[in-house]
Parts: sequence; structure tokens; C-alpha cells
Amino acid sequence: MVPSPEDDERFLRLAIEAARRARERGNHPFGAVLVDSASRVLLEAENSVLTDRDPTAHAELSLIRTAGARYDPSALAACTLYASTEPCPMCSGAIYWGGIRRLVYGLGQSRFYELTGGGEKLALSCREVLAAASERLEVVGPLIEDEAVQVHEGFWSPAA
Amino acid sequence: MVPSPEDDERFLRLAIEAARRARERGNHPFGAVLVDSASRVLLEAENSVLTDRDPTAHAELSLIRTAGARYDPSALAACTLYASTEPCPMCSGAIYWGGIRRLVYGLGQSRFYELTGGGEKLALSCREVLAAASERLEVVGPLIEDEAVQVHEGFWSPAA
Repeated sequence: MVPSPEDDERFLRLAIEAARRARERGNHPFGAVLVDSASRVLLEAENSVLTDRDPTAHAELSLIRTAGARYDPSALAACTLYASTEPCPMCSGAIYWGGIRRLVYGLGQSRFYELTGGGEKLALSCREVLAAASERLEVVGPLIEDEAVQVHEGFWSPAA
Repeated sequence: MVPSPEDDERFLRLAIEAARRARERGNHPFGAVLVDSASRVLLEAENSVLTDRDPTAHAELSLIRTAGARYDPSALAACTLYASTEPCPMCSGAIYWGGIRRLVYGLGQSRFYELTGGGEKLALSCREVLAAASERLEVVGPLIEDEAVQVHEGFWSPAA
């Protein structure tokens, strides 16, 4: 069963809360939540790149690592991953390899890049990275962007 | 200083050896090596997706995790990462976030997909994923493909 639009917004807010915790702990403001087909929250994860000194410790990737160890592929294939901000290409790939069925994100990349002022970046959207997998991995977003943007406010210094 | 073409081939062979060890240990045949600007081997890593039950434990990504914890960004910005086979989008992103300066790979994606018979895949090349970063991250490959393909032989069942 796919979560309702109301459920999608509710779980996205949990992902945004995880992003807020990441920021409070001195990390980048990104969070992710994994929800099963019965709308149960299985996992929450937050960015820990700075405190863990791990360039790959984005919220979504850390969540997939834990999920792979804890759940069977058949369970993951029924899950939705909620990301507070559109996943980068690394995380989009991790979500693919994790065998997740559905990805829902809040703040979209183009509006996120407006905040950071552009600068150096991986410019591909998650739909571009996941295009070849679109039959088994549904992508929904951006959603509730006006809420999702708030956790980023005042955090990023726009590039010159 | 950038490694010579002879050095590139030599370090790629180390990455292929790591891929061979991964296969011997029951994992997918992929390996990676990190080399600094003085042509010293800093790290080797191999795929451990199956034995670690971690969908993100590709050789390149595991190498970046270790490298981030162990070396300063300024050191990583002078390093070359050698991958036995062209990195997937997840790993290409990880190499970007790791701040690596140069990526050299052996077997290219198109020839690799011939072995696996296509099927489900993330179809983007590493150059497509890294296009926006091409000014700071040089990509070299494919190289010594006839050698790099050998570790895959008899491993993959072509998709129908």
C-alpha cells in the first residue's frame, strides 16, 4: 500500500525534524526517514558528515546502510524513503542499490541551489540519476517546499 | 604530481587484485586503490556488499569513508582513486564528496554491461555524473580493459 498524500507530508516533516537535529549537532541540515508498506516508521537518519568525518555520511546513505543490515530485500522493496531535501547523485544511487520502491523528497534541488548560491555541485537531479530505474522506483517531489526550506535558512553562505 | 601512464596501469592492477580478493571472499568483483601525489598507495578497498549486508559497500565508497576519517581534505585533493571498473553513480558521487582530484578506471561501463547482459541498472556513466565537477576532478578511462575484464569472467549471469 502506498502512503496517502497526507501521510507523505507527515513523514516528510519527520525527515525535516531529523535535518533540524543534524544541524543542532553541528552537521549539515539533511534528514531521512524510512517507512514500510503499513506506514510504520522503520528508521530515521541524519547527516553526520562533519562529526563522523565521513564524506559519505549523508542522511539517505546512512539510512540505507542501516536498512540493508536490518531488513530483507523483500521488505525494503515495499518501503518509501523520505528525504528532507532532494537526494544528491550519491544518495540517489544508494537508494537504488538499497532496493527501495518509492522516494519522496521535500525541498527540490533548484530551490536548494538558490540558497547555496550555486558554486561547485553535482548538478544532476535525482530523477536524472534514477531515470533508468523509473519502473521500479517511483519519485515524488518537491513537496511542502516552504516548510522544507526553513531548516536551511541562515545555514549556507552563498558562493561568490 | 600526476602519476605517469605506467603508474596508472600499475595502480589499476592493484585495484583489479582487490577486486579478485572481493570475489574470493564471496562479494562482487570490484576493487579500488587510493594513491597520493608522491605515488604512494594510501588505501585499498574491495566490495563487501554481500558479506557486510550493506548495499552501499562498493569498493570506491568504502575507500572514501576510510579516507575521510584518516586524511585531511588537502591531502585528498591531491589523490588519485583507481577503480577496477567504472564507478556507478553512487560511487562517482562519493568520489566527488571525498574531494578527490583524479579518477582512473579500468573496465568501462558499456563493456561491463555487455557481461551482465544489461537488465536493470543505473545507466549514467561516471563522466555524466561528474560533468559539473570536471574542472577539479579529472577522469581517465577506460584503461587496460582486456585485463580488467578478466576478474568478471564467469561471475555474472546475463539478464534475460
